[in-house]
Amino acid sequence: MAESHVTTILEANRAYADAFDRGDLEIAPARPVLVLTCIDARLDPAAFLGLDVGDGHVLRNAGGRVTDDVVRSAAISSWLLGTREFLVIHHTDCGMTKFTNDVLHGMIHDATGVDVSDEDFLPFSDVEQSVRDDVARLRETKTLPEDVRVTGFVYDVRTGEVSEVA
Amino acid sequence: MAESHVTTILEANRAYADAFDRGDLEIAPARPVLVLTCIDARLDPAAFLGLDVGDGHVLRNAGGRVTDDVVRSAAISSWLLGTREFLVIHHTDCGMTKFTNDVLHGMIHDATGVDVSDEDFLPFSDVEQSVRDDVARLRETKTLPEDVRVTGFVYDVRTGEVSEVA
Repeated sequence: MAESHVTTILEANRAYADAFDRGDLEIAPARPVLVLTCIDARLDPAAFLGLDVGDGHVLRNAGGRVTDDVVRSAAISSWLLGTREFLVIHHTDCGMTKFTNDVLHGMIHDATGVDVSDEDFLPFSDVEQSVRDDVARLRETKTLPEDVRVTGFVYDVRTGEVSEVA
Repeated sequence: MAESHVTTILEANRAYADAFDRGDLEIAPARPVLVLTCIDARLDPAAFLGLDVGDGHVLRNAGGRVTDDVVRSAAISSWLLGTREFLVIHHTDCGMTKFTNDVLHGMIHDATGVDVSDEDFLPFSDVEQSVRDDVARLRETKTLPEDVRVTGFVYDVRTGEVSEVA
């Protein structure tokens, strides 16, 4: 059945490409904005932040957590493409609040035989605190431009609203 | 001036929330799809793949590269939320093809005084090869479900079209 998802997606892409008229956009974002948020399927950050195609960078991982890879991406985004306003956005009802490292370690070991017990999957229990922690980590990162501003938000999946928390 | 971007974004979010009627979506994606792509501002993956809100996970970093953090997110996405069809999508005119590690190391050192010369920012020169490399890395990852399928694509920022390359 998996094949059908790619087939469906490619059909949708043909329709998108047929109507596409934004092929002249510049590589640098029109607004100097970098958004970090979660992979959650319910989140359409461009839509809920009013970002048009070409407006800003969107960086997403499980939880919207600040990791070494996020710092890598943020350095490229800011130094090479001029972003200076970073928004960290976690959300209510996040999957990251619904498991522990021990549970996931056990699940992976049982299914694959691989011991991943030294890996931190970065779950959290308090979404406002996780935003504050991650905003603090970005602000403390010495390898980003000093005029970067970092703001933190929680997106409510029930209402579509973002609230500033850091 | 940076403040005005957040102000503009929050105003746009109020309008989004006022019209929001998808507060009843489930946490698990409606389709078992995980998309990995670049942070580039010109990419709206939900739009160019025909994914509606709630349909699939979207993971984005600089380049759409497979990193340890991507494997972390993919494990959470697949083991806990059921995704099995992974799409790796790099794109034409990517910023990752326009610098070298040496250039970025020098830029960061000159501006901040921090030596990051041991960091690989994962630039690439051949976009089809980078897709094949990253698809291979995901396929070889032993900690993901064995029934995960990985397909690789290049998105053309001039035409809006995706082409399968791996």
